[in-house]
Amino acid sequence: MEITFIGLGNMGFPMASNLIKAGFKLTVFDVVAEFVRRCVELGAKASASVVEAVQNAEAVITMVPASSHVLDLYLGSGAIVAATKPTTLLIDCSTISVEASRKVASAAAGRGQDMIDAPVSGGTQGAINATLTFMVGGEANAVERARPLLEKMGKTIRHAGPSGAGQTVKMCNNMLLGIQMVGTSEALKLGLANGVDPRVLSEIMCSSSGRNWTLEVYNPCPGIMDNTPASRGYSGGFSVDLMYKDLGLAQESAIALQVATPLGSMVRNLYALHSRASGHLDFSSIYQFLSGKNA
Amino acid sequence: MEITFIGLGNMGFPMASNLIKAGFKLTVFDVVAEFVRRCVELGAKASASVVEAVQNAEAVITMVPASSHVLDLYLGSGAIVAATKPTTLLIDCSTISVEASRKVASAAAGRGQDMIDAPVSGGTQGAINATLTFMVGGEANAVERARPLLEKMGKTIRHAGPSGAGQTVKMCNNMLLGIQMVGTSEALKLGLANGVDPRVLSEIMCSSSGRNWTLEVYNPCPGIMDNTPASRGYSGGFSVDLMYKDLGLAQESAIALQVATPLGSMVRNLYALHSRASGHLDFSSIYQFLSGKNA
Amino acid sequence: MEITFIGLGNMGFPMASNLIKAGFKLTVFDVVAEFVRRCVELGAKASASVVEAVQNAEAVITMVPASSHVLDLYLGSGAIVAATKPTTLLIDCSTISVEASRKVASAAAGRGQDMIDAPVSGGTQGAINATLTFMVGGEANAVERARPLLEKMGKTIRHAGPSGAGQTVKMCNNMLLGIQMVGTSEALKLGLANGVDPRVLSEIMCSSSGRNWTLEVYNPCPGIMDNTPASRGYSGGFSVDLMYKDLGLAQESAIALQVATPLGSMVRNLYALHSRASGHLDFSSIYQFLSGKNA
Amino acid sequence: MEITFIGLGNMGFPMASNLIKAGFKLTVFDVVAEFVRRCVELGAKASASVVEAVQNAEAVITMVPASSHVLDLYLGSGAIVAATKPTTLLIDCSTISVEASRKVASAAAGRGQDMIDAPVSGGTQGAINATLTFMVGGEANAVERARPLLEKMGKTIRHAGPSGAGQTVKMCNNMLLGIQMVGTSEALKLGLANGVDPRVLSEIMCSSSGRNWTLEVYNPCPGIMDNTPASRGYSGGFSVDLMYKDLGLAQESAIALQVATPLGSMVRNLYALHSRASGHLDFSSIYQFLSGKNA
Repeated sequence: MEITFIGLGNMGFPMASNLIKAGFKLTVFDVVAEFVRRCVELGAKASASVVEAVQNAEAVITMVPASSHVLDLYLGSGAIVAATKPTTLLIDCSTISVEASRKVASAAAGRGQDMIDAPVSGGTQGAINATLTFMVGGEANAVERARPLLEKMGKTIRHAGPSGAGQTVKMCNNMLLGIQMVGTSEALKLGLANGVDPRVLSEIMCSSSGRNWTLEVYNPCPGIMDNTPASRGYSGGFSVDLMYKDLGLAQESAIALQVATPLGSMVRNLYALHSRASGHLDFSSIYQFLSGKNA
Repeated sequence: MEITFIGLGNMGFPMASNLIKAGFKLTVFDVVAEFVRRCVELGAKASASVVEAVQNAEAVITMVPASSHVLDLYLGSGAIVAATKPTTLLIDCSTISVEASRKVASAAAGRGQDMIDAPVSGGTQGAINATLTFMVGGEANAVERARPLLEKMGKTIRHAGPSGAGQTVKMCNNMLLGIQMVGTSEALKLGLANGVDPRVLSEIMCSSSGRNWTLEVYNPCPGIMDNTPASRGYSGGFSVDLMYKDLGLAQESAIALQVATPLGSMVRNLYALHSRASGHLDFSSIYQFLSGKNA
Repeated sequence: MEITFIGLGNMGFPMASNLIKAGFKLTVFDVVAEFVRRCVELGAKASASVVEAVQNAEAVITMVPASSHVLDLYLGSGAIVAATKPTTLLIDCSTISVEASRKVASAAAGRGQDMIDAPVSGGTQGAINATLTFMVGGEANAVERARPLLEKMGKTIRHAGPSGAGQTVKMCNNMLLGIQMVGTSEALKLGLANGVDPRVLSEIMCSSSGRNWTLEVYNPCPGIMDNTPASRGYSGGFSVDLMYKDLGLAQESAIALQVATPLGSMVRNLYALHSRASGHLDFSSIYQFLSGKNA
Repeated sequence: MEITFIGLGNMGFPMASNLIKAGFKLTVFDVVAEFVRRCVELGAKASASVVEAVQNAEAVITMVPASSHVLDLYLGSGAIVAATKPTTLLIDCSTISVEASRKVASAAAGRGQDMIDAPVSGGTQGAINATLTFMVGGEANAVERARPLLEKMGKTIRHAGPSGAGQTVKMCNNMLLGIQMVGTSEALKLGLANGVDPRVLSEIMCSSSGRNWTLEVYNPCPGIMDNTPASRGYSGGFSVDLMYKDLGLAQESAIALQVATPLGSMVRNLYALHSRASGHLDFSSIYQFLSGKNA
């Protein structure tokens, strides 16, 4: 099966590598020559342009930073929708706005193409280990066509609904995650100011109604859990800048669709302030940002 | 063992009942005659005053609405600290401020008395079924003295630290719970506005980093889970007014101790607005309050 | 001078009327036939299409509800930029996003046309009385060309900077206005709960550092000022829905440009919640929305 | 007239000095010997204790940092209420909680004493120049008795209502001021990110519905106004720490009285975060704190 993979950065490169290892024949493209070279060394074929890269592909996979890149690749200078065959399967793994995702999918559908939005969670480590989770939007048969490819790059494939549903689920999940990270940090700080050991407080809340994913596996207070970013100076993990980007996508959608999200917008503002100095740290570092005079 | 139980309302009555069923000899007091009568029918002995009720008690248990009641019972007109023996064990199960709790415990310590703060979670159903969780603050030996009593009224006893730690843990847990309830509601509303089925969104988030207790057992969207308040018109459960009270306790503490809790204070304000019309509904009804024009 | 006026609703009709009264020869267009008829009765000439309406115009003025309408009128089906002469002066009085405004102005500049963004404040009464304030963005000479027209429709013309600056100033001003309206309401409610007469409190704050435009001329508490919406059941004035729209524009811009606006986004959320039931009321009615249990 | 002045710090010393200059005979007390000495040099008489200082006073004026000090001075170890004559006029100029203020006034009333709460605005410069504004709560005749003294220390005396009304007005005004300072900063930042000169934006908003005291005399953006803290590195003025204290008083009251103040509580949290590093700067420095990635 001829696959074209576009966008070979921190996420795209290990994802493409896993497809190569699984025996797929890859044509690749990236604007960074060094990224292309790494893939060619593994056996991929380089292409001089997006159009050239995709014209014979049976499936195209894209993994790029933002809505503008996806729009340009599929509908603009890249012209993937126009340059590919009607039978080509289009898979966008980028995390972008629901609106942009649907715009591209709608154009693809106009040419009779199957397209899915399939943003991921799991980070670079998940990409390397092929343990990513894909949140997928699109027609059921398109998802089935994509499954053999997605399964080589990830462990869990969740079909969330029609086109745009993958982006929606990721956006909603990460907004809630951001809220929980800030909320957990506030609770631990308030406990600390009242003289309660954050380890004990974490344990009790984790077995009570305050339980959430951050308390289970990603405690933001240093020293409580091993192998968390908080316990290694907030390095590694999911960066403040990436969380901030996802919170912005959620707010754009909330404003466009007139949804009230008071906590989601507050958390975006907190990460906006935090990102100025600490954008590269893990997003659990908001725990440190949230310090008043005493805690 | 002679036990005095003061405060026989929705929570206190079933708790006292469970002690009576377990064979303890109870003296009871409440300002509501009807509440007292219910206990007397079960075999408790009524008392004309707090002072009379507590003077021969080996243990005193109180379950009243607010800090002011506890302060009055122990240090004011009730004079429990002064009227009891130095060997009397004092157990306050009310949910009150850490500050008030420590003030009473400190006075008790001055007379050599053991005192613990032991607020509960689990609601009236937990009180009836003796499945409450006690979050306990106080000296370890005082907690051990109280354990045989607490075990008759609840299932889980968590020693959180010194005096006030029980109140602290409950306050922090419930603040975080409130934040999660609002955050989950926002995420589900945003998903809905983007056309994603809240059931599917809930399932995916619950197996992802957005997981929290509300998604696991208390989904605020009607129809997703059986046996939740949301699926029976937000009746039963933990009321908006009680959540609002706990959020107020957390904010009082945050202000006094100069802790920054932007989400905690926002959630208090949202429940303040919601409580005006819907204070008696379950606190998950904030899902309905959080509706903008389209969702 | 041949002028074409497009968009003849609550604002556009009185603005066009004032130009007709001032002796200008107007060609008009609106999708609502009745709106067109009202202008024809005053002496305007109707046109069958936007393209026909604008092709001989020396100046085109547009007053429509949203960015999408402006984009469609100038660059889409209306094709104003393409259909007018290079010497035609283009004036958009709509309140839209800075981004959309700049996009159109940039296209116009590409054809050598002068274009200004000139959103207004002052409401329908200001439009009727020709006392509007225009906040204008564009080249200085374009503003000078427009001045004789603007002066017939308004009293104050403020040149704020290059293209988009008019929209920026209106958006910033109205975000700040919304914040002040909510802030003033909170202060008055807090005073009331503490037993202070809101009239006395308003007077003292208005002569102190709490002074703002709402305290000076638009007090949200009923009965304090005559002739305010608050004193006539929040009817008339500037509607919740319009304030909500402007707050949304500000937040879209804040997210796109990565600006932190914690109060601006909170106020958008409060108006989102308020608009559900009370979108048609004056925006000072947020005073009533902001009532907790006691005030 | 025999006056006793207690609390001779940054505010109290110049206030006491102005009374001495006006010919009043002062007895003074402070726990800081150096503060006492400065007053003695101007002609005041020192006292060894509060009780000794007040027992022959016709009027007592207090100017101390917090509720706890006032409670201790009047009802605790200082015992001013008990130690003074029934005819002694009591004037507390401290900024404290309404609740504490009313508690003391109520005790004073029980002994037949006139007491007013008279917190000030105007800062140390206003204290030095005798241009303070007094916001006064208490009986009308008590205010009239105090007027000859207040007029020597300030320029404006506003009687706001019964006991506690002075504190209420100051608390509400400063909460609104904090909201306006943050709101103005957000608007200027958003304008800047959109390329509009903050000076132009300030001017236009100041003559529009965004007008408020900060735009009129205290612009937080450096370089726009001469003689503002913003134009001298945020030195001088009204400190972040003092604003933070006042915002805390407002929130304590809002929680106790169940008032919804979403912006007031958000602003408290922002100043909590800001105060950690910059508590000594002028409160307009929140303009710098509110910077995201781009502005």
